[in-house]
Amino acid sequence: MGKKIAVIIDDMFEDSEYQKPADAFRDAGHELVHLGVKAGAEVKGKKEGTTVKIDQAVTEAQPDRFDALLIPGGYSPDRLRVSPDAVAFARKFMDDGKPVFSICHGAQLLVTAKALEGRKATGWKSIRQDLIYAGAEYCDQEVVVDGNLVTSRQPSDLPAFIEAARKKLQ
Amino acid sequence: MGKKIAVIIDDMFEDSEYQKPADAFRDAGHELVHLGVKAGAEVKGKKEGTTVKIDQAVTEAQPDRFDALLIPGGYSPDRLRVSPDAVAFARKFMDDGKPVFSICHGAQLLVTAKALEGRKATGWKSIRQDLIYAGAEYCDQEVVVDGNLVTSRQPSDLPAFIEAARKKLQ
Repeated sequence: MGKKIAVIIDDMFEDSEYQKPADAFRDAGHELVHLGVKAGAEVKGKKEGTTVKIDQAVTEAQPDRFDALLIPGGYSPDRLRVSPDAVAFARKFMDDGKPVFSICHGAQLLVTAKALEGRKATGWKSIRQDLIYAGAEYCDQEVVVDGNLVTSRQPSDLPAFIEAARKKLQ
Repeated sequence: MGKKIAVIIDDMFEDSEYQKPADAFRDAGHELVHLGVKAGAEVKGKKEGTTVKIDQAVTEAQPDRFDALLIPGGYSPDRLRVSPDAVAFARKFMDDGKPVFSICHGAQLLVTAKALEGRKATGWKSIRQDLIYAGAEYCDQEVVVDGNLVTSRQPSDLPAFIEAARKKLQ
């Protein structure tokens, strides 16, 4: 049965890190709801200008209404984490043990949520030391699965990331 | 007497956080040397497209030949910190107690250099928790001066940032 996946996203996301998981999740029968700063706004990818319409403001979204969370990378996570509501939203999924799929800079949002202490995780190499300081065990692997948390480093990891995420949605 | 200031910079820097300190330092008789990934390359600001020519690759630069370091913000610091040479370069200034001027996301480079433990510092609000995890005491002020280290949060802090930096260059 299809799951309801929150995608938390803002301008300058890494196009493929949104588009490829989104396509794969939809193909598997899951529903995506795009959350951002402002409902109705259009946010754009940083390389290819992929456009995503924000379905709902994260300030008004209820984590309990979703089964999983996708955090695409690029500069979107660093923009989102200035919003206490976005941070609290991501934190709730981690607290509840619901699947969280984070790639590239996505883990920045989880660092600000203080949700990585004692967790195995990965992310884009620039944030390696941030993750270590945040109490994570940084693993230089294409995908790291630690309980509910699925993390990857970069676009070339997408096949492994999507495969691991899809397993969590079964 | 004029000082020699290294400016470590890459694409997507915050235009004003480079341009305004650079103008002020030159007006005060100091010399700027722009260090980046590749000598001769032109890097661009993220908002206004300000162009900066890289004078020297950071891999070939000698910290001992400079009196101070400027780290403009934007996404430039996150790009630079994947270079171990850029990280080591910044670290050397901190180890030697030479003036380091970091604004906005600039402190990301200092986090990766593990150079903020026990230091008072500030930066763009998105990196607040990163700085705390890195062992810094985060101060929500327009400028924080802790020994050799001068940090600010954002473009609106530039007047205070420049004034504090110029005092360190006297």
